[in-house]
Amino acid sequence: MPQGKPEVVPQDGLTTRQRRNRPLLAVHTGAMKGKSTAAFGMALRAWNQGWSIGVFQFVKSAKWKVGEETAFRALGQVHDDTGQGGPVEWHKMGEGWSWARKSGTDEDHAANARDCWAEIKRRLLAEQHDFYVLDEFSYLLHWGWIDVDDVVEALTSRPGHQHVVITGRNAPAKLIEAADLVVEMTKIKHPMDAGQKGQRGIEW
Amino acid sequence: MPQGKPEVVPQDGLTTRQRRNRPLLAVHTGAMKGKSTAAFGMALRAWNQGWSIGVFQFVKSAKWKVGEETAFRALGQVHDDTGQGGPVEWHKMGEGWSWARKSGTDEDHAANARDCWAEIKRRLLAEQHDFYVLDEFSYLLHWGWIDVDDVVEALTSRPGHQHVVITGRNAPAKLIEAADLVVEMTKIKHPMDAGQKGQRGIEW
Repeated sequence: MPQGKPEVVPQDGLTTRQRRNRPLLAVHTGAMKGKSTAAFGMALRAWNQGWSIGVFQFVKSAKWKVGEETAFRALGQVHDDTGQGGPVEWHKMGEGWSWARKSGTDEDHAANARDCWAEIKRRLLAEQHDFYVLDEFSYLLHWGWIDVDDVVEALTSRPGHQHVVITGRNAPAKLIEAADLVVEMTKIKHPMDAGQKGQRGIEW
Repeated sequence: MPQGKPEVVPQDGLTTRQRRNRPLLAVHTGAMKGKSTAAFGMALRAWNQGWSIGVFQFVKSAKWKVGEETAFRALGQVHDDTGQGGPVEWHKMGEGWSWARKSGTDEDHAANARDCWAEIKRRLLAEQHDFYVLDEFSYLLHWGWIDVDDVVEALTSRPGHQHVVITGRNAPAKLIEAADLVVEMTKIKHPMDAGQKGQRGIEW
């Protein structure tokens, strides 16, 4: 319900308008599909508001989510050509991150991920985007590649009005605690259980 | 995992290729946000495949999900102008459904919904789209406005290679049974619990 009545009116000294416009930290976690997909669905709304969108994908395969990437690049082009919607930047770790080390080993990947996170922190401080998707980012916290306290500190103290959506399984408790919105995607039934394989247009 | 190994190889006489290309019936249900959002995220992939997309929204407020609608209309325009991606049709019940009755009472809404469903059945039989989103459709089944047996029959016997995603709470057991993929969105934490109201760019 987009405009439902809140169950509680908080005693936080904010007006309804201030509260309505509070920037959101959202986490999509759980074992099931839909975490990233829903984040990109949210980004559609952000685009429509004319917001600057920054997508940062912490995935290794170039094939993953190429559909969403192409569609958002097309929307970014619409913005650049006609002024409709917002601008879109799309970055993939290890590919096209100009500030990132190119590398092969796991240790290198971890260092790479830390470089990428440092770049995101710089952008948050500079208020570079209005809407961030940190796709599959929770794994890096779970693996200890990036320090969760540093992430929570940077996110909760971010200036201005920047929305951030983080996706991935095993989101650490400290991140959940810091988030405003947490959705868990739960499997009821999946075609791979019945031997279905991933398919073009559906899985990527 | 887009291309993971299936846990079971079924004895269904199909080749892996046939199985990979089987059309999908997906249901996004549960009490939490992300059901429709994830469906529209999937539609981004479908668009990138050049598939014809048909979105049918069973919602009453014109304000709902206007962000996704505008973005997909822009993507449809990209297709029409440049040939990139697929064509997009976006229909809202009670507004712009030329075949639907305009009306006010609940009984009229139910009749309207049945007209809309009849149109979707015609399109399925005609293989008009490659990817359908029936947004908030489960409510109509839950309320008994549309017969679930009729829906299951039409969906399971649909010809060709048409993917269908149905969203909404309270998806009936028969629909879950018929679906290939069912995701439940579960609330862990929601800003409205803390008195946050819905906000522009996030909720619509």
